[in-house]
Amino acid sequence: MRGLRELILRELAYSKKNLWSLLDRCQFLLRDVLDELNRMYDEGLIGVDEDGLYLTEKGRSLIRPESLRLKAGLCEACKGRRITLDGEFKDLLREFKSIVKGRPRPVLDYFQGYMREYDVVARVALMNYYGDLSGRDVILIGDDDLLSVALSLTELPSRILVLDIDERLGGFLKKINRDYGFQIEFKRHNVADPLPEDIIGSFDVFSSEPLETWSGLRAFIVRGVSCLKEDGVGYFGLTRVEASLKKWRKVERLITTAP
Amino acid sequence: MRGLRELILRELAYSKKNLWSLLDRCQFLLRDVLDELNRMYDEGLIGVDEDGLYLTEKGRSLIRPESLRLKAGLCEACKGRRITLDGEFKDLLREFKSIVKGRPRPVLDYFQGYMREYDVVARVALMNYYGDLSGRDVILIGDDDLLSVALSLTELPSRILVLDIDERLGGFLKKINRDYGFQIEFKRHNVADPLPEDIIGSFDVFSSEPLETWSGLRAFIVRGVSCLKEDGVGYFGLTRVEASLKKWRKVERLITTAP
Repeated sequence: MRGLRELILRELAYSKKNLWSLLDRCQFLLRDVLDELNRMYDEGLIGVDEDGLYLTEKGRSLIRPESLRLKAGLCEACKGRRITLDGEFKDLLREFKSIVKGRPRPVLDYFQGYMREYDVVARVALMNYYGDLSGRDVILIGDDDLLSVALSLTELPSRILVLDIDERLGGFLKKINRDYGFQIEFKRHNVADPLPEDIIGSFDVFSSEPLETWSGLRAFIVRGVSCLKEDGVGYFGLTRVEASLKKWRKVERLITTAP
Repeated sequence: MRGLRELILRELAYSKKNLWSLLDRCQFLLRDVLDELNRMYDEGLIGVDEDGLYLTEKGRSLIRPESLRLKAGLCEACKGRRITLDGEFKDLLREFKSIVKGRPRPVLDYFQGYMREYDVVARVALMNYYGDLSGRDVILIGDDDLLSVALSLTELPSRILVLDIDERLGGFLKKINRDYGFQIEFKRHNVADPLPEDIIGSFDVFSSEPLETWSGLRAFIVRGVSCLKEDGVGYFGLTRVEASLKKWRKVERLITTAP
């Protein structure tokens, strides 16, 4: 894996790190990072204790000290998200956290779930930044994250429709609607099935956090795009630790070559 | 232009703005923004004075006040670049600014030239963040920005080759090499011509700031990619004010469908 070993050496030269913060920094696949760490461990370049991974003397000898002089980091203020949340968004985050406390427990365990609420509100802020909330009809293809609730708190979209396979989510949203006066619509839908006719071409914006298998990705994105009116806009998330650059390229090709 | 009018109304509702800060915020084409501003002016929605554009009472009446409550902005700390420059990078920026003072004057006028030096160093920081500097062979397809000089200041790349049509740049780099002990290589090259054989497939990284005409874009990117070894990496810049989203899509298709 070109560059991965150098990157691990560099990162550990700055400080001891656990696997997760190393992954955050790496932009390589989880499995490639694990493979490389195992190789480096076998070669005696790194060690591990309860505080995390560290460089051995042998590992440290491979570093050119001048390569450590310049350190570029992800922006501390926005964590590399580009967008910051001002005071009103912070209030919204607080409300959102308190509302979603009673959410149905996930059926799958989500990787990096720990920042989820902040990330959801950051997504809303991004959509707002691009002018895709106010007066817009928004459809969510899957809503494990309860983005629908954060969107409702903005009071900006004209319509919010959730398609999700999980009937429990429908029940939860119904309760939230009642308690907070929201109008989130819910339709049980398996993304593997064709879309209901009346939904196709009816929305300004879709958002989705697809499964990262290729067929999952494809289904979520194609469904989302099908829901859009002319000049519609889509948002979806894709990691770098589970989706390889080859898969990213395939996704970009899917989007840019669609008719 | 869908959403553009709302965005202009919103932005001017927050504060009076000049055309450039509005463009910065807009992510729409310069010509579309100008067209829309003219229409809005004709309809009496906006006015203009020496401090910039402002909303008239009629314009202000079109805004839903609740749409202004939440304001997401580009991160102040990194200006939306995701990457921040630490102390050492700030020193590098100072050195860079002082070295490039004597640069040949541009033959074309560059849009948004005022932040160029900071932007160049931010580019270097980004390349550093992705692990694409240390020990790498880097080729620059065009070097109006003198990225080669900023790269040399890092002392990290193994090789830096500049291809540029402007012979004066070669002379300037020669002088810089002599004065600062750099080893920047220069080859005069018109991007419309085929690449020299010995360059093809020889580099780890390319960087380019293409012309934004389609044929220009295509030539710079295809040349850059041709210079790369297996698993090589490319960086190039593209604006949103001069290149339409349709052009962006075409560029992504070019990159992702190449064999």
